[in-house]
Amino acid sequence: MSIVVMKFGGTSVADARKIRAAARRAIRAQKQGRQVVMVVSAMGKETDRLVDLARQISPTPPHREMDQLLATGEQVTISLMAMSLEEMGCPAISFTAGQIGMVTDEAHTKARLKSIAAEKIHHELDAGKVVIVAGFQGVTESGAITTLGRGGSNVTLVAIAAALKADLCENFTDVDGIFTADPRIVPTARKLDAVSYDEMLELASLGASVLHHRAVEFAKKYDVPLHVRNSEHNRKGTLIVHETESMERIVVRGAALKEGLARVTLSSVPDHPGVVARIFHQVARENVVVDDIIQTIADNGKATVSFTVEMAELPECKQAVDILRKELKCSARYEDHLAKVSVVGVGMRTHTGVAEKMFASLAAEGINIQNITTSEIKISCLINRTQGKKALRVVHDAFGLGIQKPARKKPAKKAAKKSTRKKAK
Amino acid sequence: MSIVVMKFGGTSVADARKIRAAARRAIRAQKQGRQVVMVVSAMGKETDRLVDLARQISPTPPHREMDQLLATGEQVTISLMAMSLEEMGCPAISFTAGQIGMVTDEAHTKARLKSIAAEKIHHELDAGKVVIVAGFQGVTESGAITTLGRGGSNVTLVAIAAALKADLCENFTDVDGIFTADPRIVPTARKLDAVSYDEMLELASLGASVLHHRAVEFAKKYDVPLHVRNSEHNRKGTLIVHETESMERIVVRGAALKEGLARVTLSSVPDHPGVVARIFHQVARENVVVDDIIQTIADNGKATVSFTVEMAELPECKQAVDILRKELKCSARYEDHLAKVSVVGVGMRTHTGVAEKMFASLAAEGINIQNITTSEIKISCLINRTQGKKALRVVHDAFGLGIQKPARKKPAKKAAKKSTRKKAK
Repeated sequence: MSIVVMKFGGTSVADARKIRAAARRAIRAQKQGRQVVMVVSAMGKETDRLVDLARQISPTPPHREMDQLLATGEQVTISLMAMSLEEMGCPAISFTAGQIGMVTDEAHTKARLKSIAAEKIHHELDAGKVVIVAGFQGVTESGAITTLGRGGSNVTLVAIAAALKADLCENFTDVDGIFTADPRIVPTARKLDAVSYDEMLELASLGASVLHHRAVEFAKKYDVPLHVRNSEHNRKGTLIVHETESMERIVVRGAALKEGLARVTLSSVPDHPGVVARIFHQVARENVVVDDIIQTIADNGKATVSFTVEMAELPECKQAVDILRKELKCSARYEDHLAKVSVVGVGMRTHTGVAEKMFASLAAEGINIQNITTSEIKISCLINRTQGKKALRVVHDAFGLGIQKPARKKPAKKAAKKSTRKKAK
Repeated sequence: MSIVVMKFGGTSVADARKIRAAARRAIRAQKQGRQVVMVVSAMGKETDRLVDLARQISPTPPHREMDQLLATGEQVTISLMAMSLEEMGCPAISFTAGQIGMVTDEAHTKARLKSIAAEKIHHELDAGKVVIVAGFQGVTESGAITTLGRGGSNVTLVAIAAALKADLCENFTDVDGIFTADPRIVPTARKLDAVSYDEMLELASLGASVLHHRAVEFAKKYDVPLHVRNSEHNRKGTLIVHETESMERIVVRGAALKEGLARVTLSSVPDHPGVVARIFHQVARENVVVDDIIQTIADNGKATVSFTVEMAELPECKQAVDILRKELKCSARYEDHLAKVSVVGVGMRTHTGVAEKMFASLAAEGINIQNITTSEIKISCLINRTQGKKALRVVHDAFGLGIQKPARKKPAKKAAKKSTRKKAK
């Protein structure tokens, strides 16, 4: 019998009405002849409430106890969901991570899954029950409760689907799917029917918040097709799958904007092995997450190293840089209020002209590019934050990603020349 | 090293301030050279909140899922308590019932403890930590979460103390201890320094709500001395222990009132073996809890069986009685709005005159007695509910139980004659 694993995020189980709606969806799937597993998050603002309770007690609660606390949020939802199904006459059983052996390492608050004892779930499914699993949580071999960090419930979803060899893996959320750009900024943004894992990974790390990149990595690794869809209706969402040949024909799949960035530039850095490692070791010690890194060598044989960080982390970053300035006898420059606009598409691997088109479209609107970074399937430009939203609309337009465009306004495909070179941007 | 197990009820951990106060108390005990285990309940009204959530989903939630839900209440408290201790610099670790193998049977919502894996607790105590255990919950051998029913956290307290062979077992609550009568009804009621297990068992089942009789039974069985005290100050509370010789010198330890009772009287019941069993089998099938039972044989050889039940359960009880009336061809009479006033004391085993004094004191105030039931150490009188509170004050006075009484008003001890007969009332 085919198995479907459905995940419902916090907004999709925020109250009794929504829990009942999710339960009805599971029952419909079961009536279509499927075995159904549900993965659920904590209700609405429940996690925030628990975090607030902890903060009243301690500004720095021990991670083990924080996990013990936060895991109750999902435990409440699984039991209510099972009650709702039973109330509708559908046999159901709820499981915490501990009860089905979702074993993780000991890294509390950001644990990594090691194994799942799938037999117990299979046993209950074979008995005709809907099985409800608490998302976001795990258990160590010694029985301590862990949590999986940001995006953890989606990691649970994908891991369960992989362990059960599920045919369908549905992520129910409060948006219709993955869009060509954030619809709040770009009104013409279009829902995508499908994106590849790699594209989704780039989009997730570029600011598209629907799916955390860890869940996508997991799905890619275990070959689990993910369907992101809205819990409020029955329309299809976006499928996230391995890339197909037809996907490569679309050069740019989507565009993204990340705001609130700052750039740090270190000049006159000695150019010998180990220096860059030294720099980013010091930055990491302050727990600052570094976004893009660019290094160039000047005529005098000294290097210039610049990197971007979240603006909120700039104070910690400056502490690290102060130490480095003295040690390396280099100078430092800071620019804040920056934004990064990016385009992503697996077609870039085999098509040329994308970078050119992007730069030209930004230039035509008077938007100055301060940095350029690329990967095989994306191009990012660092710009002034005040121009961020406009830049997103400009590139979205330039590559004809939106809806209701006349055909002549979709030049991306036509202009791009087929190329066998990789990274031919 | 000596071990103390401290339990904090819901009102004693209702907010961050009270959690910190409880943590400080544990630290003080540890600084006095003791190993400390804390058993905690859900915070304040948390259990009510969870029950309300369940009711929004289902009027009759499955017991397994209800336990899965309710157990989160205590899990929240244990983690916050551990955070609070750590914040004060005291190493601490929290455990759910599952994490320390508090194994119960499968009777969800009213499970019975079977065993506790004490090694894990000893291990953490020996490492210098305060160990915090979730009260009220257990785990089945297959890993399902159970709850222990009413008074469950006190059962956990006593069970942990027994398993660890603790020297001290403290029950912190929002009252100063066990009183000679409910102080809300009898202003002169006096806090008792000590009561025996048997007295506490009678008082608990007669309406004294501080301790549930299951916890007291457990404490008696495993010889655990229980100290009931107030979490808001440091004064001594009431010790519940095996009876001592000096205890027997006090004939009446306390008085209790149970209101909201109804009496069912079945007349012309055939007097042959198995009939009474048939009656109470039928009543039990309706899940009605029967309080006292009195059977008398009339001159015609027929029996009269009367019993008391909670008034709230009278409708279900009537359904059972309707079946019995037809089957046994007997008649039935119902009286509601009754109350039961009782006096309790182990000294009754060896003293006479108690019943006489009780009846006389009630009669002197014009309070009519409708039924009398006794055990070795208690006498109960069924009376009209409207006279209940007055009756409690009357007997409390008659046996000189209150504070600030001149010596001549304490006639109980003097009047009672020493007797070697048992049940010499």
